[in-house]
Amino acid sequence: MERTYIKDLKDHKGEEVVIAGWVDVRRDQGKMVFIDMRDMSGKVQCVVLPSHTEALESVKEIRTEWVLSLKGLVNERPEKNKNAGVQNGDIELEIINIEVLSQAQELPFELGTEVNLDTYLDYLPFTLRSDRAKDIFTIQSTILDAYRSSLRSQGFTEFMSPAIVGEDAEGGSAVFPLDYFNDHRAYLATSPQFYKQIMVGVFERSCTVAKVFRAEKSTTTRHLSEITQMDFEMGFIKDERDPMKVLENTVRDTVKSVGEKHKDILARFNTTIPEIPDEIPIFTLAEAQALVAKEYNRTIEDANDMSPEDERQLCEYVKKNFHSDFVFITRFPTKKRAFYTYEDPTEAPLSRGFDLLFRGLEINSGAQRIHDYDKLVERIKERGMDPEKFSYYLQAFKYGMPPHGGASTGLERFTAKMLEIQNVKEATAFPRDMNRIDKRLSE
Amino acid sequence: MERTYIKDLKDHKGEEVVIAGWVDVRRDQGKMVFIDMRDMSGKVQCVVLPSHTEALESVKEIRTEWVLSLKGLVNERPEKNKNAGVQNGDIELEIINIEVLSQAQELPFELGTEVNLDTYLDYLPFTLRSDRAKDIFTIQSTILDAYRSSLRSQGFTEFMSPAIVGEDAEGGSAVFPLDYFNDHRAYLATSPQFYKQIMVGVFERSCTVAKVFRAEKSTTTRHLSEITQMDFEMGFIKDERDPMKVLENTVRDTVKSVGEKHKDILARFNTTIPEIPDEIPIFTLAEAQALVAKEYNRTIEDANDMSPEDERQLCEYVKKNFHSDFVFITRFPTKKRAFYTYEDPTEAPLSRGFDLLFRGLEINSGAQRIHDYDKLVERIKERGMDPEKFSYYLQAFKYGMPPHGGASTGLERFTAKMLEIQNVKEATAFPRDMNRIDKRLSE
Repeated sequence: MERTYIKDLKDHKGEEVVIAGWVDVRRDQGKMVFIDMRDMSGKVQCVVLPSHTEALESVKEIRTEWVLSLKGLVNERPEKNKNAGVQNGDIELEIINIEVLSQAQELPFELGTEVNLDTYLDYLPFTLRSDRAKDIFTIQSTILDAYRSSLRSQGFTEFMSPAIVGEDAEGGSAVFPLDYFNDHRAYLATSPQFYKQIMVGVFERSCTVAKVFRAEKSTTTRHLSEITQMDFEMGFIKDERDPMKVLENTVRDTVKSVGEKHKDILARFNTTIPEIPDEIPIFTLAEAQALVAKEYNRTIEDANDMSPEDERQLCEYVKKNFHSDFVFITRFPTKKRAFYTYEDPTEAPLSRGFDLLFRGLEINSGAQRIHDYDKLVERIKERGMDPEKFSYYLQAFKYGMPPHGGASTGLERFTAKMLEIQNVKEATAFPRDMNRIDKRLSE
Repeated sequence: MERTYIKDLKDHKGEEVVIAGWVDVRRDQGKMVFIDMRDMSGKVQCVVLPSHTEALESVKEIRTEWVLSLKGLVNERPEKNKNAGVQNGDIELEIINIEVLSQAQELPFELGTEVNLDTYLDYLPFTLRSDRAKDIFTIQSTILDAYRSSLRSQGFTEFMSPAIVGEDAEGGSAVFPLDYFNDHRAYLATSPQFYKQIMVGVFERSCTVAKVFRAEKSTTTRHLSEITQMDFEMGFIKDERDPMKVLENTVRDTVKSVGEKHKDILARFNTTIPEIPDEIPIFTLAEAQALVAKEYNRTIEDANDMSPEDERQLCEYVKKNFHSDFVFITRFPTKKRAFYTYEDPTEAPLSRGFDLLFRGLEINSGAQRIHDYDKLVERIKERGMDPEKFSYYLQAFKYGMPPHGGASTGLERFTAKMLEIQNVKEATAFPRDMNRIDKRLSE
């Protein structure tokens, strides 16, 4: 008999069906045994009645997380046992036959138990099965799809950006070195930036979902050593407002898609669909800091960059006064931004870079870039770096590059803020940090 | 004035427009200068007439690959100059004003010149702009999108699989080691296999597009050190025929999407939409080899695996006799497949693994996997490996795993064969191999 998904059982009342899945909960009640079964589509309560002696015998040894194929009868529950608002709350599967597809050993703890983060991560192949984790990565899958789809609909062509790079050109200490062939040294990419700019020369509008790697010795809740960036870059722009507009469209489409598909998940996380007004508010860095200084009656420590507190307070203010969960910040000092960031004489020493904050956290950063070869070489030298190390990248500019800009959104941060999760590691399927690659490294 | 894309010029005959793009070709003809302009949407011939003295002055210094914004008049060409079958072959832009957005230095060679592969790769930021490269990566972008969309429509949830892994568990020599934090050694993933299997425990059907890394000292046209794999894995299967069916659906959807969108590109590569009959033919390894031995009157060298010649001849035979560009091969010896490959007693020593060949090349490999914890531990030991090194992965099986299987398609190989390109490096935007990471390493 063909397998019926648990979500479809409601359409089979009074019929005999086969379901397959995991034992989510087992309860013994007198001579009856109740089993809540879980598959990719949901959960249902099943019962072994004393009259089904064979099933009753099989069920004895069955424990949580065993994988079963069950033949049973879909019964309507008596009125008093109906559970409104719960999936399959009005039905119950009367088990006729049990086939054990796979056994499970004793569990470290029941699925869904609140444990500390380290324990949660130690047992990820098990804890990822919890409702909470399943919800998080369902949302993440939708974000990935919606973000890319939106960019495609805006004329972007997707490409695969490399993870292995040949030079630690920017000379950051936060780069992972790699043993390559024949004693060559290679590095892991910290960004798809150079490659998406090169692709502007090909497609004008390029996008990529790329893994980037940061060897920062930091153990905060915001840092990971392997991150997923959703990047785009576009040519023939007037200034940074063009990529800001594309980013706004993309974020709007993504939020809309999450809202349409996952109202139930948002509710389970006690959050709502993020608010985006017709235009996401834009503040310059100076405006933003003056505003939070006044509103929250405090002094600003660093006028060159937003502190985490500045970011949280600005978002709080914007949420209250603009009904927006998003806010743009522009006009950062050029010296605080990457070397390729555009600065024009009328705004010096400020750049055409921008950040997008979401519910108190920076999830995106972007800019207009320098497109003139000579200016770019000059900037590289100004920063004390060697243009020779950038010679491959610089070809794109040597052979004619239009004014262009783009942005980069962190998938894990976006996911975390969408569900108002505090620790970004929980929004990463297999997080890597200083102390962990799957297993703890200190062991 | 708003920019008009070159593909839309045909709708603006007799109007003044602004276009922006690259100088594709420049030709001087008496007192007139012809410029073919190129943007993301196509090409158009532009002309500076002697009467436009200002434009004539500006055009003097302009060379190929300069980036321009042009104001001009869309003129219908005289009948004798019309060029049927060419984009914008019936119109010409009479240039009124030229704004130089960006200059280009002298080019190493004209774009589209046939150069050897090494030279082509040395100048990728430039050569990627050629029509040929643009076509290849347009197709690749469609493949990526169609493949994922098809899997999503078949119930798969996408996740991001890690690139950094903690153990070189299988002990292959073809793994890149990495300096991690605190003198720890880490490695680059050779496959998302373990992680997609773990995700079967979460979603039953999981998929991922993941970079994988192979430190194989090989310089053939088929080998890259960084590859993009499109992977899926599914639970509650009967046997390997279930993932084979999903793979067939996915490949069919992808080919259909390429065929619908890119007939023009396929024609430019002198190829056609790949043929897929209602069912892709399936041969066991033994059948396939017996067949080519008979058909091509030769002996088989290795009965345990298909040689490249076996693969080419089988595909040739299947194309002729089954009108299929694809063919499945099953029943490889278990010992020739990865340790987690399923072997059941009735088929030992043969496994439930399969390969999918496309136009003479293996583009995909898959299998039913072992789902029983004890069997998997036993197999690991049989292969002389240490189960302790797999302890994280093994949790998925310890805590109940359904019968499952999946497959993995190489994006670059799939792209190459779609366009019948000989060298897979040409179907990789930024190929890495033994001798090259962007620049040649021997330098």
